[in-house]
Amino acid sequence: MTLFAKIITGEIPCHRVYDDAHVLAFLDINPLSRAHTLVIPKERCASLRDLSDDAGAAIGRVLPRIVRAAMAASGGTGCNVLCNDGADAGQEVMHVHFHVIPRVGDHGLRRTWRPGRLDPEDVAEILDVMHQSMARIG
Amino acid sequence: MTLFAKIITGEIPCHRVYDDAHVLAFLDINPLSRAHTLVIPKERCASLRDLSDDAGAAIGRVLPRIVRAAMAASGGTGCNVLCNDGADAGQEVMHVHFHVIPRVGDHGLRRTWRPGRLDPEDVAEILDVMHQSMARIG
Repeated sequence: MTLFAKIITGEIPCHRVYDDAHVLAFLDINPLSRAHTLVIPKERCASLRDLSDDAGAAIGRVLPRIVRAAMAASGGTGCNVLCNDGADAGQEVMHVHFHVIPRVGDHGLRRTWRPGRLDPEDVAEILDVMHQSMARIG
Repeated sequence: MTLFAKIITGEIPCHRVYDDAHVLAFLDINPLSRAHTLVIPKERCASLRDLSDDAGAAIGRVLPRIVRAAMAASGGTGCNVLCNDGADAGQEVMHVHFHVIPRVGDHGLRRTWRPGRLDPEDVAEILDVMHQSMARIG
């Protein structure tokens, strides 16, 4: 059982921000900035890839409100919402979670953007695989 | 009108990954990695803070499928889903958008995590403001 599953059952306490039938949000105890909040599905699921449509919708529905609340509590001037999916992408607890990270002065998410260029010759192949994948599931 | 609003109306073309009544997803032309995809609400809205519950839910519902499709097309071993909200958080186009960024070898989102510690004396004040904010809206 992951740390977050234990927080959902109440076995481990948390600083609760929001709670409904499908979603729990609580303060990150190792915040990148003031009011850094974690938003998790109650559905036990390690990877965003495997999350049900309904749990995904329940999280998406509440994210704008959590962002507003975190901005209000932090006085931040911006906010990053980030889900790290998989160890290679920085996921540490293997239960789906979205970070809501206010930007407060120098505090917040630090990221480096090194964009490339979409190769026109690659587009058809990428889209073909993606459309097949979307069709298979939706 | 933003670039993304023009993509929604069809005035500017895009490499379409997914499309429904509320959501459009298309390939980022300046990708951080193969199959880097943008997921946007059709609702015209600059900031995630101001997005409607329904548009948020529609995006959340489809994110897991987009992540799966981007992983399939990229062969990535992880994925980051990121919304930069506000110029100070790195938002460049002022229409809400979520980046789906596969981690493919060295390509993907680069981020630095410099966590602090949640100050126990701060918790009550942070939660008080957040709960008031959540109650006002939900």
